[in-house]
Amino acid sequence: MKPLEQCQVTIVGLGLMGGSLAGGLRPRCRSVVGVTRRQDSIDIALKRRLINHGTMDLEEGLVDADIVVLATPVRIILRQLKTIGPLLPHGCLLIDLGSTKAEIITAMGHLPDHVQPLGGHPMCGKETSGIAAADPTIYHGATFILTPLERTSEEALDLGRALARAAGSRPLVLSAARQDFLVGTVSHLPYLMACAMVATADERTSPDPAAWKIVAGGYRDTTRVAGSDVTMMTDILLTNPKPVLGAIDTFQQQIARLRRLVEEGDEEALRSALQAIRDERLRMYP
Amino acid sequence: MKPLEQCQVTIVGLGLMGGSLAGGLRPRCRSVVGVTRRQDSIDIALKRRLINHGTMDLEEGLVDADIVVLATPVRIILRQLKTIGPLLPHGCLLIDLGSTKAEIITAMGHLPDHVQPLGGHPMCGKETSGIAAADPTIYHGATFILTPLERTSEEALDLGRALARAAGSRPLVLSAARQDFLVGTVSHLPYLMACAMVATADERTSPDPAAWKIVAGGYRDTTRVAGSDVTMMTDILLTNPKPVLGAIDTFQQQIARLRRLVEEGDEEALRSALQAIRDERLRMYP
Repeated sequence: MKPLEQCQVTIVGLGLMGGSLAGGLRPRCRSVVGVTRRQDSIDIALKRRLINHGTMDLEEGLVDADIVVLATPVRIILRQLKTIGPLLPHGCLLIDLGSTKAEIITAMGHLPDHVQPLGGHPMCGKETSGIAAADPTIYHGATFILTPLERTSEEALDLGRALARAAGSRPLVLSAARQDFLVGTVSHLPYLMACAMVATADERTSPDPAAWKIVAGGYRDTTRVAGSDVTMMTDILLTNPKPVLGAIDTFQQQIARLRRLVEEGDEEALRSALQAIRDERLRMYP
Repeated sequence: MKPLEQCQVTIVGLGLMGGSLAGGLRPRCRSVVGVTRRQDSIDIALKRRLINHGTMDLEEGLVDADIVVLATPVRIILRQLKTIGPLLPHGCLLIDLGSTKAEIITAMGHLPDHVQPLGGHPMCGKETSGIAAADPTIYHGATFILTPLERTSEEALDLGRALARAAGSRPLVLSAARQDFLVGTVSHLPYLMACAMVATADERTSPDPAAWKIVAGGYRDTTRVAGSDVTMMTDILLTNPKPVLGAIDTFQQQIARLRRLVEEGDEEALRSALQAIRDERLRMYP
């Protein structure tokens, strides 16, 4: 495999994640080609100098690719993996950016032998979506999870690591099952929690116009991710049900425990539970 | 009552909220006196030019006050209200900064007649606490809820409004019951939710060292308020149980509804629920 700086990277899907990655890689590889269904996305990506070339023709975009990045929602990736195999150049690295990995890794296992597949999941994003929101700096300092298959060569994995680093991220190799379990709790659960919070406020306080005037930073921050792209999140939740349901179950027990402490008015127990939680939060974010 | 710029304002409690308010008011009134139990808090407040004068003697701090602000945790305020009456100068305005108002308003009703009491709740804060974290700008643009008693004169309410505006906030007059109901949902529930999220991550993913590497902005923002001061939050929860428990109940139903949609894998229903929530969030934060 060629070193990254000599590679053509073709990115399929120019949304927030694909467009941002394109912009970060463009100065660090031979060229970045963007494949998308919309001409206006190509126009924006070219104007913002995120890509060297854009096309709406998948076959054309793939023909000279050394690295192909699937940057579409998870279930589109799953669909693409069924048909993309014969179009991929010999020896190319195929990586994706999907947030859940088990189903994708299984589908990648059926790719033809002339391809090197590698699962990828950059732990970054924004609550806005689309190429207009693209921002290469969201990758800076983020952990970029890589989930190799058994058939993935060391060389291909190294090229994946180089790609993550070129974007400004820190590669972290995990098994698909371990990554899905972890993100079910630290990423998908916060999203559902934020959604439930918005729905609760909508049900209880939205009828009072004063509610809109008093929402402060706490509500704003805890609900930020409820603005995430719905197609992306639907795909994520439906392809990671077991870890997500398990995380919700634990969360429901925890909120029920706090509810009980408030209801019982047990000051000492409430204070000590809240203190332990605060200490834990401060350990994560000193 | 004198106009604000001729008033001495005595602030009892120089933590984040009291210290920040002191700094915002100092250039806009005759003088700001800080009362606190710790000499080092006075030293910091003087050095940072948040107050004109500091004392550990409550009586001394109150003697020439035109406005007294109680800026301590809610249940300390309740305790102070029992004894502070005789120490308050004739005709002075007494206002507090507590996050729950029903119990405080009831206690204020027992103050001697020579005092003008007014409930206050600035909708701002930070997850850090103490005078070292004081920052007058947290009041800028925030809604400052005022909950007058029946006995509160129009003049006293106007002075309360002037104080809120001088700090850079927008006064909003609400009944205590209405404010407690609203903040139970839009402020106290987000705190408990953030706490339950931290406890869930601690239980499920903390044993895996990779978990610390992959937490991203979503987790960070949804859990930010779990770092809030524990004494303050314990007091808030224990003095606002009914609205808080009601908010938790609605929230539990909402999270259970989302859980069911994930479990059933009903794509259309899940997508449409998430879309409605996203739209609602965008209405609040366009």
